[in-house]
Amino acid sequence: MPRGNLPVDAARIARDLADLAALTEPDRRWTRRAFTPVFLEGRRWLAERMRDAGLDPVIDAAGNLIGRRSGRNPGRGTLIIGSHSDTVPDGGRYDGTAGVITGLEVARALQDTGITLEHDLEIVDFLAEEVSIFGVSCIGSRAMTGQIPADWLEREHQGRSLRQAIVEAGGDPGGLSPRNDIRASLELHIEQGPVLETEGETIGIVTSITGITRIALRVTGRADHAGTTPMRLRDDALVTAAGIVLDIHGEAYRRARDEAGHFTATVGEFTIKPGAANVVPGAAELLIDARASDPGVMTHFVDWLRSKIAGRPVTMQVISDNPPCPCDPSLCLELETAARQLGAKSRRMVSGAGHDTAWISKTAPAAMIFVPCKDGRSHCPEESATPEDIAVGAAVLFETLLAIDGRLAR
Amino acid sequence: MPRGNLPVDAARIARDLADLAALTEPDRRWTRRAFTPVFLEGRRWLAERMRDAGLDPVIDAAGNLIGRRSGRNPGRGTLIIGSHSDTVPDGGRYDGTAGVITGLEVARALQDTGITLEHDLEIVDFLAEEVSIFGVSCIGSRAMTGQIPADWLEREHQGRSLRQAIVEAGGDPGGLSPRNDIRASLELHIEQGPVLETEGETIGIVTSITGITRIALRVTGRADHAGTTPMRLRDDALVTAAGIVLDIHGEAYRRARDEAGHFTATVGEFTIKPGAANVVPGAAELLIDARASDPGVMTHFVDWLRSKIAGRPVTMQVISDNPPCPCDPSLCLELETAARQLGAKSRRMVSGAGHDTAWISKTAPAAMIFVPCKDGRSHCPEESATPEDIAVGAAVLFETLLAIDGRLAR
Repeated sequence: MPRGNLPVDAARIARDLADLAALTEPDRRWTRRAFTPVFLEGRRWLAERMRDAGLDPVIDAAGNLIGRRSGRNPGRGTLIIGSHSDTVPDGGRYDGTAGVITGLEVARALQDTGITLEHDLEIVDFLAEEVSIFGVSCIGSRAMTGQIPADWLEREHQGRSLRQAIVEAGGDPGGLSPRNDIRASLELHIEQGPVLETEGETIGIVTSITGITRIALRVTGRADHAGTTPMRLRDDALVTAAGIVLDIHGEAYRRARDEAGHFTATVGEFTIKPGAANVVPGAAELLIDARASDPGVMTHFVDWLRSKIAGRPVTMQVISDNPPCPCDPSLCLELETAARQLGAKSRRMVSGAGHDTAWISKTAPAAMIFVPCKDGRSHCPEESATPEDIAVGAAVLFETLLAIDGRLAR
Repeated sequence: MPRGNLPVDAARIARDLADLAALTEPDRRWTRRAFTPVFLEGRRWLAERMRDAGLDPVIDAAGNLIGRRSGRNPGRGTLIIGSHSDTVPDGGRYDGTAGVITGLEVARALQDTGITLEHDLEIVDFLAEEVSIFGVSCIGSRAMTGQIPADWLEREHQGRSLRQAIVEAGGDPGGLSPRNDIRASLELHIEQGPVLETEGETIGIVTSITGITRIALRVTGRADHAGTTPMRLRDDALVTAAGIVLDIHGEAYRRARDEAGHFTATVGEFTIKPGAANVVPGAAELLIDARASDPGVMTHFVDWLRSKIAGRPVTMQVISDNPPCPCDPSLCLELETAARQLGAKSRRMVSGAGHDTAWISKTAPAAMIFVPCKDGRSHCPEESATPEDIAVGAAVLFETLLAIDGRLAR
């Protein structure tokens, strides 16, 4: 059990999370997609809370909402705590908001205790972490660190460009320049998986954010009449594809069990053609989502898949291939120490999901922690986490922030 | 090789098939769906050809186009040769039309040879054999024999009822009464499978039209985040469903190989939910099409499937269950004799597809023959059969018709 007298207030966190969640699409719970009116309404609410917490809210060129608190020595650079307030459709009760409200609570704890840091502090609501209406994600964290692809700004949704949408959110895409003042960045997020809950732990120290490789397979068979084509004369693409699904699952299961680190492979999209009751399937399309914390394991998996389909009527295309992002080892150690000192049970783990921290970590020391979520569920209306667990996480960030501030000032 | 001097004319058959095929939807080859304007145009053409062949074209109450030729003794009843002129979308170059034009050619052969039968003869274009715009099939053959479900006539498509559509095709649904004068019914159809072509045979003697059972399975798993849910903690509905697909295929392959008669089982429709790249599939739906010439084999298969899914998160629903329809043994023997006398290689076989003959066979002696089609393909633009093979089939029907007429008159 964590220590009783935390520097943060679980009730305050619970109230803020409830107030922010109430700002949702009419008749659709927990939906506040980036660039929509209700998203901007959420940000206005958030800017007010920042002011109450002694932060100075601004929108940067990338469209991130940032609550600033000056440190004792402005030249030392900036410490960041951030996550995102946008949501997927239906499922944004805690995903992202838990991290933003945690940042806010850390700022309030500083205000309550009258502490002034050596460094400037920024509580950040990164713009559009989830896949947005423009079809892309992590817009704010990429843009802030000079990693947004040039053509993204011209993407359109219903006649509006992403560039225009960022301007309407208060940003200035023309004025983008990569930040080089970030000394450390922290994020709290719900786990979105069942491990912490299953193992009875409160804090996950994220050592790495998994690499994600997406692979499309197309299986070709021969569409024939289902009644008149004898079983022995068929080339049924669904039967071939079903075998491949089982092979992939078996291989992923073994790799996850036998190798160190995180590995998953999922066939999440699967369609057959023509898809008629009386026609033998003539083609099947599979989309594989493979995730590994070790790039070598991913390479082995892709090679295994390539050899598995070799000589068969299957084509394979790697759609995207993002390598894993390790978190900063010093920050991980400081997070772990803070958890231990607070009496919170923690474990090191890999994030199987992508996060803003992955992008920040490419240009600055960054790390993140997970708190448990009910039944491991996320991106759905049932997504749930307790204010008590989130408060423990907030306390870990608070203590870690003080430790980093001290270490970097030495 | 069949005898050289056939009583029928392959060139006439080829010309008629080409002329009828040319009546198709604009820019869409071989599409003449029942109840559409181009279908009615095809029938006007067909009625003209019937008149040329000495037949008297009428539309019966069921909407079938019938070319009548009176026999010597009107009280003896009627002999029928028929098939259908409607098509599936894209694939109606020979499916149905080969049988209708064959009937026409048999009438012309009678005209050429000056033969008058003892019985009345009807060359029938059955209405809407294929699944029509009203979602149902074999409308004409069912209605003619008193087997059309009462509620079908009220089915609607774009504000028009089937009843109305039959009236517009020249029928009179209010005046329907089951025929009891049919003494024998014959049909020629392309095989829609690869057996005759593979085995080098010209005529398939259809001993039975397969029973068809359609079964829906619903597999329930748990939709989870594909990146954060460890392989060991998943319940992936696609993986479960893929195993079931392979089980069904293996079982069907063995039954088809080891048991007498015809057996197939096909998963032709297969969908997963939610079907997103980063979500473990939470549910899968399968539609199984199983066909057996022996009802006992079908019962065993359904029992096997039920025991296979017992205790698993799978629900099973038998959607439809039509028993096999045996063809008349005397007619089969007469067809076989005619083929032999004409020097045409034949084999007995089961029809894996449904046909109008299945419905006629429930109320009158009925049988059918198959002719080869290229690569076993049907219901697609590539569907193809040679006028020579169709002419051999027409000659078999001609000789069989004379044999039946003589036998029944004795």
